[in-house]
Amino acid sequence: MIGKEKPVLAVLCGDDQAGDLTGSPAMQGIESTALVRYTGAAGLADALRDADVLFVYDFLSRAVPDAWHAANRLRWLHIASAGVDPVMFPAMRDSDVVLTNSRGVFDDSIAEYVLGVVLSFAKDLHGSLDLQRERRWQHRETERIAGREVLIVGTGPIGRAIARMLRAAGMRVAGAGRRARTGDPDFGTVHASAALAEHLPAYDYVVAVAPLTEQTKGLFDAAAFAAMKPSARFVNVGRGELVVTGDLIEALRSGAIAGAALDVFDTEPLPADSPLWTMPRVLISPHMSGDFLGWRDTLIELFADNFHRWRTGTPLRNVVDKQLGYVPSE
Amino acid sequence: MIGKEKPVLAVLCGDDQAGDLTGSPAMQGIESTALVRYTGAAGLADALRDADVLFVYDFLSRAVPDAWHAANRLRWLHIASAGVDPVMFPAMRDSDVVLTNSRGVFDDSIAEYVLGVVLSFAKDLHGSLDLQRERRWQHRETERIAGREVLIVGTGPIGRAIARMLRAAGMRVAGAGRRARTGDPDFGTVHASAALAEHLPAYDYVVAVAPLTEQTKGLFDAAAFAAMKPSARFVNVGRGELVVTGDLIEALRSGAIAGAALDVFDTEPLPADSPLWTMPRVLISPHMSGDFLGWRDTLIELFADNFHRWRTGTPLRNVVDKQLGYVPSE
Repeated sequence: MIGKEKPVLAVLCGDDQAGDLTGSPAMQGIESTALVRYTGAAGLADALRDADVLFVYDFLSRAVPDAWHAANRLRWLHIASAGVDPVMFPAMRDSDVVLTNSRGVFDDSIAEYVLGVVLSFAKDLHGSLDLQRERRWQHRETERIAGREVLIVGTGPIGRAIARMLRAAGMRVAGAGRRARTGDPDFGTVHASAALAEHLPAYDYVVAVAPLTEQTKGLFDAAAFAAMKPSARFVNVGRGELVVTGDLIEALRSGAIAGAALDVFDTEPLPADSPLWTMPRVLISPHMSGDFLGWRDTLIELFADNFHRWRTGTPLRNVVDKQLGYVPSE
Repeated sequence: MIGKEKPVLAVLCGDDQAGDLTGSPAMQGIESTALVRYTGAAGLADALRDADVLFVYDFLSRAVPDAWHAANRLRWLHIASAGVDPVMFPAMRDSDVVLTNSRGVFDDSIAEYVLGVVLSFAKDLHGSLDLQRERRWQHRETERIAGREVLIVGTGPIGRAIARMLRAAGMRVAGAGRRARTGDPDFGTVHASAALAEHLPAYDYVVAVAPLTEQTKGLFDAAAFAAMKPSARFVNVGRGELVVTGDLIEALRSGAIAGAALDVFDTEPLPADSPLWTMPRVLISPHMSGDFLGWRDTLIELFADNFHRWRTGTPLRNVVDKQLGYVPSE
């Protein structure tokens, strides 16, 4: 039996994640004002029945579409990530359920990661580690990053944080987004993503950080890699599906581009038989570029703040435009 | 027989370096106005006899002291590095020979390298490479660099470039130099190196970039490492002899500090039996942090500019105070 006053909150989390939540003072605060149902994927349909709110803490789970039929009175869905593609299925998109995301939590951390991999390429830090393993003292000349040209594909808050960080470190940046424009405060010039290939030849580094939408899926394909400089490095901190993975592998093999730093993949975990693991000049990390120590607390606190807003009728933060697939810029 | 008008320039270079010089338009320009003697270490004494100028292009060579007796009319010595310790022997210091160095060429490149290794530690990029080699998908949480405290020991132009770069990337910096002060444009606070141990406990990263002098030799010893945070990382882009190597190894073994990125060593090349090669959380590079593509040309051009100044009676750039052991700040 459900209390008249207490809203029902379903929380989708993995078995290994429940402790993050139940141990969190922010969630404990919510438990005093709501009936909270923690559930894994298998129990999601039951938990959604009569639930007012769904908090998708396990943000890589693909369980929501299959359980959606049980969401008989859901009003709001919050996801603990910046990308909302795991919950952007047609029934959700067409419903009246409000969708919010965790925009902002990861921005600066991802920007630091991108600068780190750019410097790792420029200074050949991975080459130094390989030589160190063999106890080989082999002097090399390395690249400057000052003045190098970077194209950041994706002009949301993460892309903007990357632009500010790389520019602060002496690089020259431009953006690519839905709409071409000049005078952007972070990017200066923004090219139209639809005309990406004609702009790619000018850049030393290309960073993918666009949201995954119908327009951006497979944006980085053979034609895009062919348009890049042979000396260019490709960095993906957005979504694996922005890339046609086979085309990327072929571009690396053929020398169409000089290297790639990949934090996201179209299949995660990256399968053990992927050739990417062992390709030279490829840096693999397991979808962690934004995950600084403390990120889980920060995510939970962001949800708790939004939950308080929802309870008190205050406008929610980070409301996603479900037609665009992301939170529009102000 | 030496022409009356043409000064004699001795150039100390390794066998594998002569091509850099003889192929350089800048050196070819000098050859039209001076008698140029390219020599390796074995021929240095002969080359110094009646030479007016010595250009130490092989800046790691220790050959100058042994040949110094032959320098019967030397007036100026230029070294193709920022550190002048290879030519700071007593007979040189006490002579009237003017000493200039290559200050400025490496500053920004070394600053990029330092930021790269800081980010490599914070984002565990070397850990990602180790896991990649094993095809292991293992998520970790990593550190932010924003707000982290860095002490830069050495307030010359390289230290200043490092300070500006790290601050631009969001870190908090302070310096350590001969004289404690506040309000420094690059460092804000500068501590006295003589009181280093009392300041070290406050810092997450400690960067050694001081010139090697009697005062700085062995500055980083067991007491200094004991004073650092157990989570601190030590970065040496100055000189290996700033560090008591055995004490550093012991500090890494015992956990007195959390890691080290080392570009310079008291013996170079680093001997194959050094335990540093295989210690966890130690990044080794072979004295290359400043050596960007094109650095050799830039070094030769700097010397050529100074040579032109010397020929025309214009004040030389980068005159070293031989008592201090470096070019004093303006």
